[in-house]
Amino acid sequence: MEKEQIVQRVLNELLAQQGNTSSKAGAPGTESFLAPLAKGHEERNAGCALPEFVGNGPYGDSLGLVIPNLDPALHRILGLPERFRSIGVVTARSGAGPEIMAADEAVKSCNAEVVFFEQSNDTKGGGGHGSILMFGAEDVSDTRRAVEVALEALEWSYGGIVSNGTSYVECQYTARASTALEKYMHAELGKAWGLVNGCPAGIGVLMADTALKAADVKLVAYGSSNTGANEADTNEFITMFVGDSAAVLQAVRAGREAGIQLLRTLGDEPVPTGTEYF
Amino acid sequence: MEKEQIVQRVLNELLAQQGNTSSKAGAPGTESFLAPLAKGHEERNAGCALPEFVGNGPYGDSLGLVIPNLDPALHRILGLPERFRSIGVVTARSGAGPEIMAADEAVKSCNAEVVFFEQSNDTKGGGGHGSILMFGAEDVSDTRRAVEVALEALEWSYGGIVSNGTSYVECQYTARASTALEKYMHAELGKAWGLVNGCPAGIGVLMADTALKAADVKLVAYGSSNTGANEADTNEFITMFVGDSAAVLQAVRAGREAGIQLLRTLGDEPVPTGTEYF
Amino acid sequence: MEKEQIVQRVLNELLAQQGNTSSKAGAPGTESFLAPLAKGHEERNAGCALPEFVGNGPYGDSLGLVIPNLDPALHRILGLPERFRSIGVVTARSGAGPEIMAADEAVKSCNAEVVFFEQSNDTKGGGGHGSILMFGAEDVSDTRRAVEVALEALEWSYGGIVSNGTSYVECQYTARASTALEKYMHAELGKAWGLVNGCPAGIGVLMADTALKAADVKLVAYGSSNTGANEADTNEFITMFVGDSAAVLQAVRAGREAGIQLLRTLGDEPVPTGTEYF
Repeated sequence: MEKEQIVQRVLNELLAQQGNTSSKAGAPGTESFLAPLAKGHEERNAGCALPEFVGNGPYGDSLGLVIPNLDPALHRILGLPERFRSIGVVTARSGAGPEIMAADEAVKSCNAEVVFFEQSNDTKGGGGHGSILMFGAEDVSDTRRAVEVALEALEWSYGGIVSNGTSYVECQYTARASTALEKYMHAELGKAWGLVNGCPAGIGVLMADTALKAADVKLVAYGSSNTGANEADTNEFITMFVGDSAAVLQAVRAGREAGIQLLRTLGDEPVPTGTEYF
Repeated sequence: MEKEQIVQRVLNELLAQQGNTSSKAGAPGTESFLAPLAKGHEERNAGCALPEFVGNGPYGDSLGLVIPNLDPALHRILGLPERFRSIGVVTARSGAGPEIMAADEAVKSCNAEVVFFEQSNDTKGGGGHGSILMFGAEDVSDTRRAVEVALEALEWSYGGIVSNGTSYVECQYTARASTALEKYMHAELGKAWGLVNGCPAGIGVLMADTALKAADVKLVAYGSSNTGANEADTNEFITMFVGDSAAVLQAVRAGREAGIQLLRTLGDEPVPTGTEYF
Repeated sequence: MEKEQIVQRVLNELLAQQGNTSSKAGAPGTESFLAPLAKGHEERNAGCALPEFVGNGPYGDSLGLVIPNLDPALHRILGLPERFRSIGVVTARSGAGPEIMAADEAVKSCNAEVVFFEQSNDTKGGGGHGSILMFGAEDVSDTRRAVEVALEALEWSYGGIVSNGTSYVECQYTARASTALEKYMHAELGKAWGLVNGCPAGIGVLMADTALKAADVKLVAYGSSNTGANEADTNEFITMFVGDSAAVLQAVRAGREAGIQLLRTLGDEPVPTGTEYF
C-alpha cells in the first residue's frame, strides 16, 4: 500500500515534469500534428490585443484574422480583386482540406468570396499540407463573419481526418458545393463533391480505386506528390469526385474504409480528429 | 532490495505508459523517421483484410499493394501504359532511394516494369523524401511477385542509410542496374551505378566531391534542393555515378565515409538502418 | 525521507534513460528545430578529422566546409563561376534567413562572393526552410575566412527568429546590405533592407501589412507558399522592404511585434533564438 503511494507519487511528478518539458521545448515534432489547441477559446482570444485577430481554430494550429484595409502594395502584389479592400485570413500549420471545406461553408452564409488559397508542405512533419486562404468582401462585417463562420466550421471539417501515430487519411464530402470548392477544388456549383486522400501516397491510390469502383462517380481531379493538383510535393495521393450526392457519399465512405484499413497496418488504431461529419 | 523492486516496478509502469502515450499521440515526430515497424510481420499482415494488401516493409512506414484491375479513369489520369491493367504499389513515409533500389531488384526477377515513381518531401520531418512507385505487368501474378520481392529487398536497401538524432546520409550501389534505375535514376542498363546523398545539402556536396576524387567515375546526375533531379525541395544534395563496378563502389564508399564524419559533428554517433549491404 | 530518496533515484534513472533514448532514437522530431547544438564548439570540431570541415554553427544544425579545389564535373554541373575553384559551404537543417544574413556579413569582410544559394523545405518539420549556400573566392584563404565569419555571424543572425512550441516568426534587418542580400534577397547595395516572415503563412500576412503601415518603406519582394520568391512550398509568408534605415527598422519591429502576438495565441510564450540584434 505504501509502495502504491510511492509509485503514484513518482508517476505524478514525472507526468508533471513531462508536461513542462513539452511546453518549453519549442519542438514542433513533440506535439501531434492534429492536436487540439491546448488553451481554451476564451483564454486564447483574450490573450491577443491585436484588433485584426478573430480567433483560433480548434485543430491544426489554425487562426483567423481580418485586415479591414489591406496595404495597397500588398494587395497588388497578391493579385487580389480591387473591389475588396477588406481581407479575411484563415491559416493553419496542419490542414488545407478542412480549411477549404470550412471556407466553402462560410461563403454560403455571407457575402464574401475566397480570393487566395495556397497549400504548403507542412503538417509539422506530418506528410501533408498547411494552408493559407483569404476572403474578400466589400463590407468588413462580411469579411469578419466569413472568418468567424470558417473557424467554427473547422470543428466539423477536421472530422474528415483520421490519423494514428504514423500517418493519416482524409475524406471530405459536401452535398452542395459552393464557390470556394468550385474555384479551388474542381467542384460544380450546387452539386455534390467528394475527396479522398491518403498518406503515404500509395494509400491514396487504393482509396481512389476503391471509391471509383464503389459508386457511379466521375473523377474530376487528382493530385500526387509531383503531378496534378498538388503544388506542394506532399506525400499524398488526392482524388476528387462529382456525381449525385448518394453516389459521391458512397464512394467517399468506401475509400475512407480502405484507407483506414491500410493505415492500421502501419501503426496504432486510427482515430478521427473531431467527429466524422458524413 | 525492496527499493530495487519499487524502482523496477515504477520503471515498468512508466515504460508501459510511455508506450501507450506514443501510440495514442498521433504525433509523427515522436517516432524515428526510419524506425522499424513496431509490430511483427505476421501480426501486421493478419490485421488487414483488404485483398489488395500485400504487406508492410521493414522500415520507413512502407507498404505494398496489388490492384488487379485498376479503375480505367485512374489508369488514364496517371498516364500508365494501356497494356498493364494490373498495378503494384510500393509506398513509404520515409525513403525513396531504398524503394527504387528494391524495385530495381524486383524487376530483375519478374516480368514487371516500374511505370510510376514520384518522390515527395516527407521523411516525417526528416529532411528527405517519401515515395510512391507503381509496377505494371500483364499478369497479376507478376505484379504481386514484384511487390513481394521489393518489400523483401527493402530489408537490405535501407542498409544504405546511416542516421543519427539530427540527420542522415544515404549511399546506394549496384554492380548491375536494371530498368528501374535506368528509367528513373540515370543508370545504364547492366552497368554499375552508385548514389551518394547527404542532408543537410552541404553534407551531400562534400560526399559528391569526395566520391568523384576517390575513383574514376562519371557524374551522371545531381539533385539539389531546387535544381537538378529533385522534384521535392528536400534538404539534400544527391549525386549519381556510373563507371566500372570497382570504381563506383570505391567512390560511393569514400563519399559515405566523408558524410558520416560530418554527420557526427551535428549530433550522436550515426547508426546504419539495417545492415550496410556494400 | 526514504520515500524521497526512492523518488529521486527513480527520477534520476528515468532521466538518464530518457537521455539515452533521445540520443539513440534517430528521431529529428524529438529535438527542437532551433535547438542549439548539444556539444561544445571545441568538442564538435575536434571530433572531425576531415580537412574540409571548418566548424558547426550555434543553431539550426548548421555547419561550414571549405573545398579548396572542387571537382570540375561538380563545379560545371552547379554552374559556378570558373575563376573560383575554391568553394566554401554553409548549410543547415533549420534556417535560410539567418544563413544569408551571416553570408552578407562575411562578404563585407573578405574577398569572396556568394555563388549558390538554395532554400529547401525542412526545419525538421518546423514549417520553414533549410538551406545551402556556397562562397566562391580566388584564394582559398578568403573562402575559409568567409565561412568562418559566417559561422560566427550566425550567433546574432539567429537572434532574428522568435519561436514557441508551435511555430515561429522571423525578422531580419541590415542598415547596409552587401552583395549576398543584393543577389538573393532583393536588397539594394549599401542600403537598408528588412524582412518579416511568419509561419503559418497567415501570420506573415499580418506582419507584412503592419510593417508597411508602420513606416515609409517600399515592398520589394514577397514569397508565399506557392508564389513569389519562395521555391520550397514552406508554410510562410515572407516580405522584404527597402527604404531609409530608420524606416526599415521601424517597419520590421512593428511586423515583429504583431507576429509575436499572433504566435502567442497558438501556444507558449515565444522565445528569441539567441539575442535579438536590432
